[in-house]
Amino acid sequence: MQLSETPRTRITRLPERGRSERSDLHAILDAGLICHLGLVRDGTPVVIPTGYGRIGDTVYLHASSGSGWARAIDGAPVCLTVTHLDAIVYARSVFDHSMNYRSAVVLGRARRVDDAEQKWSALRAISDQLAPGSWDYARQPSKRELAATTVLAVELAEASVKVRTGPPSDDPADLDSGRWAGVLPVRTVVGIPEPAADVDTDVAVPLHLLHRALR
Amino acid sequence: MQLSETPRTRITRLPERGRSERSDLHAILDAGLICHLGLVRDGTPVVIPTGYGRIGDTVYLHASSGSGWARAIDGAPVCLTVTHLDAIVYARSVFDHSMNYRSAVVLGRARRVDDAEQKWSALRAISDQLAPGSWDYARQPSKRELAATTVLAVELAEASVKVRTGPPSDDPADLDSGRWAGVLPVRTVVGIPEPAADVDTDVAVPLHLLHRALR
Repeated sequence: MQLSETPRTRITRLPERGRSERSDLHAILDAGLICHLGLVRDGTPVVIPTGYGRIGDTVYLHASSGSGWARAIDGAPVCLTVTHLDAIVYARSVFDHSMNYRSAVVLGRARRVDDAEQKWSALRAISDQLAPGSWDYARQPSKRELAATTVLAVELAEASVKVRTGPPSDDPADLDSGRWAGVLPVRTVVGIPEPAADVDTDVAVPLHLLHRALR
Repeated sequence: MQLSETPRTRITRLPERGRSERSDLHAILDAGLICHLGLVRDGTPVVIPTGYGRIGDTVYLHASSGSGWARAIDGAPVCLTVTHLDAIVYARSVFDHSMNYRSAVVLGRARRVDDAEQKWSALRAISDQLAPGSWDYARQPSKRELAATTVLAVELAEASVKVRTGPPSDDPADLDSGRWAGVLPVRTVVGIPEPAADVDTDVAVPLHLLHRALR
């Protein structure tokens, strides 16, 4: 299924990096751990890093019910950006240096989720995105905790997806310079789980966590 | 030196995560590869991933002179956020799951840099941030390339710095649940340099790149 282009999502610079498949958008969102959420406060843009989760064509965010930004964006336009930096691209010239990346820029309005069932599913999706396995292993939210949490939804109706892959695009005049060019891969990796000091030594690291660490 | 708090940068939620030393702000910016730049277009927030560089208390951005956003933000309020995700924090309850992170949210106005010397220094800082060593190794920008590049400056006058470290903060009632809790470290790493297909086999990988890959 295709993402429909709008005047706001049309890619004017380097359009060959644009992607219009909805599956590309989903894949970039699903591979992320945090998004950068943009909102406008008193005419000023504010960009906040935060967790998120996706169900179908809706992205969910959560915040403390006391959070100023969560109240501020209910009904307001937001931008939700997820970026994966895949490589630093070393060209023969400084000018042609670049990055390989996958990015999704979602434009929409946030709306507060009040329906109890939808809120529960949204919190599970947010939990699964950051810490898959935890929803079933850890204690699930209590009524008090649910009340202390605001969930917001943003529809995936308007989005711009960009991907750069491959080697540098050097100026032909630079190719004979004798300089090295190529890419330096960049990855996000997880390390060895570190137990909290108050965990009894006979409590095993849960399998879903080991799988992730040893992957 | 301290960062002065303003009504816009006051941390209302979890103020214990706030940092007010300017050195913390600098360290977070200096450790990043990309920032997420927030701007407002037609009343809508837009968040773009992009490279940057710092000199003293100024952050520099660059863009193609044909870029719409670079023209749009000259003189306009912007937000520049750099986030390092350091760990996923697994608690005994889903509610107390968290992340360890370092984030800097800079609020300011962007202004185009026209002074040739300042523009040159800014481009060097941006290059050094992403690809240290490349400025001296690769071909430096030509007059034509300089003209094709817009440089913007944002002063580090108003910023909010937040840091979370350490183990989960579990609800005391959950401590006897027999569940594992702790942190899963997250890191950004670089891999082995991959030469472009058109690099002669006798061209050595430059030392500054090897140092980075093997670090």
